Amino acid sequence: MPTSIFDGEFDFPLMVVHRDALEHNVATMAAFVRGHGMELAPHAKTHMSAEIARRQLAAGAWGLTVADTRQARAARGFGARRVLVANQVVDPAGLAWAAAELERDPSFEFLSFADSVEGVDILARHAGRRPFRVLVERGHEGGRAGCRSLEEFLRVAEHAAGTPGVEPAGVAGYEGGLPGAGEVRKYLDTLVEALEYVRLRDPLLSVGGSQWFDVIGRELAAVQARILLRSGAYVSHDDGYYRERTPFNRVDGELRPALEVWAYVLSAPEPGLAIVGMGKRDAPYDEGLPIPRRDGVTVLRMQDQHTVVRADGLKPGDLLSFGISHPCTAFDKWRVLPLVDSDYRVVGMINTDF
Amino acid sequence: MPTSIFDGEFDFPLMVVHRDALEHNVATMAAFVRGHGMELAPHAKTHMSAEIARRQLAAGAWGLTVADTRQARAARGFGARRVLVANQVVDPAGLAWAAAELERDPSFEFLSFADSVEGVDILARHAGRRPFRVLVERGHEGGRAGCRSLEEFLRVAEHAAGTPGVEPAGVAGYEGGLPGAGEVRKYLDTLVEALEYVRLRDPLLSVGGSQWFDVIGRELAAVQARILLRSGAYVSHDDGYYRERTPFNRVDGELRPALEVWAYVLSAPEPGLAIVGMGKRDAPYDEGLPIPRRDGVTVLRMQDQHTVVRADGLKPGDLLSFGISHPCTAFDKWRVLPLVDSDYRVVGMINTDF
Repeated sequence: MPTSIFDGEFDFPLMVVHRDALEHNVATMAAFVRGHGMELAPHAKTHMSAEIARRQLAAGAWGLTVADTRQARAARGFGARRVLVANQVVDPAGLAWAAAELERDPSFEFLSFADSVEGVDILARHAGRRPFRVLVERGHEGGRAGCRSLEEFLRVAEHAAGTPGVEPAGVAGYEGGLPGAGEVRKYLDTLVEALEYVRLRDPLLSVGGSQWFDVIGRELAAVQARILLRSGAYVSHDDGYYRERTPFNRVDGELRPALEVWAYVLSAPEPGLAIVGMGKRDAPYDEGLPIPRRDGVTVLRMQDQHTVVRADGLKPGDLLSFGISHPCTAFDKWRVLPLVDSDYRVVGMINTDF
Repeated sequence: MPTSIFDGEFDFPLMVVHRDALEHNVATMAAFVRGHGMELAPHAKTHMSAEIARRQLAAGAWGLTVADTRQARAARGFGARRVLVANQVVDPAGLAWAAAELERDPSFEFLSFADSVEGVDILARHAGRRPFRVLVERGHEGGRAGCRSLEEFLRVAEHAAGTPGVEPAGVAGYEGGLPGAGEVRKYLDTLVEALEYVRLRDPLLSVGGSQWFDVIGRELAAVQARILLRSGAYVSHDDGYYRERTPFNRVDGELRPALEVWAYVLSAPEPGLAIVGMGKRDAPYDEGLPIPRRDGVTVLRMQDQHTVVRADGLKPGDLLSFGISHPCTAFDKWRVLPLVDSDYRVVGMINTDF
């Protein structure tokens, strides 16, 4: 019988990963993309964990998305044959690694974004015998990176096509910051338009995020391209930010929160007030504070090592549990998280590599 | 000749620790407490680094302060003979370790806070042959933990004195959240009053933080107790929160910012806008955003992996540097930080244990 996290061997605060929820989410998203004729390149930046990446790849993921070349190296270690860096890559050390790895392993596929002539030229300077394949990024006004106009997009795409050592492979965009489904649809139209202009054989069209994959699935169904979804947060889901925003609030299906933090009440210095031994190093606080799993407990604020809660009847030594909001700032606070079954028995370890 | 971080071997973003600033800060604070007849038990939660703790202990620190027993175990590994947990300790696994360690090493001193009868009873239940020594915590209205009244304080102190396995060693408080010097002085008076009531031989009086040690040095100079300062952030200082609040803005002396982050411009998608490859996983954002070290660059916002800046003339591949605000959410984002000299040559490694 495996040890439970409550058997007295574990330090608190402690963040755990619920195996059933994790595996449910991996299977749910794999089925969703399959059902919509898309591919999934889950963003590994969310978890940076070999154990989770292996589950995503085993469920049929096309490859892994990462944010930079350090994460790309880690993703290779997780067993990914295809790695997509969802940014323009400009750092010499990372590009030297990528060029060497492309040469070492003929089956390795490495893709990155490009949104400027300068970016393409940097790639070209570091390319080895196999070219760097790029998705030319089409952005939008008020967005993050990406070409702001079709003209700019075409200038970069043509430069990529004409530059030795670089090869256009498709189009990329990021719809995550847009306010509503209407804006997402309009933006997806500009990506499809861009794709038609580049006239590639078997092109990729990559979009990202865990908030709009329902709209993406509908709008891009008829597009002649391999649609590559980069959702990351779906894998652990949450009790806050993504609980409110998941497309499964609009379409059939369900994600389950896989992350939970346990912490002791350290002090109850005033009636109705308690200080919990869990702080900014232990749980996310940037897109919503932790969500107490006990009725009558309200989180007031977090400090480096403490969470101040309003609640009646708590006393020092009480153990509380919380769901979290925003998985992408949760996993990075832990080097190892126990993987637990529904009785909180430890059935595995989730190692992270941040 | 050691390698520079710019020699092409290093991944970016990269946070570095400046050796000269670090060692200057360690020496400055050691001299300050010595000059005021106080002792320093620097809060190791800020850095959780063996290399930094060793420098603090070598400079004469009384011991190390930590936030919980997991950190206490790490502090023992850093070489601390005295460890002060600046919280009420309630977790069985941690107390079992502390009891065993007290028994194993007769020279080990372990202290923690107590602010309730329940907390004292929890300690007593886990005590071994040597008692758990406690600083009874006097809080203040609107503060974090700590007894809110002198009556409550005395109740806990008497209970600690009368409970086998527990032994009162002094008084603790935390002035860090108070708005001004006047409030700090009034609060320190309540700590001195509490100390007079407990009538201990050679008592400790511990206060904390990096914002008011000038007031503490003046106000507690004549108190018949060993004054134990728990400042932590001073050791790296910063370019934001503590730059504005350090007591050395009011008294002779100076701390220097020891932390700096370097990151590439990934994209310059619009005139005046640039996307930098540094995000919430790389630099603090909770008490002020990173501070650009280049004129004309303004940080607009941070995302998981990106910082959006306003600046003219930046292009992909430009390398930017930033100071940080709030050391206590900086070190925990890195497992290893290069220690660099003034030419950015790597002269050591700062390992962290979060």
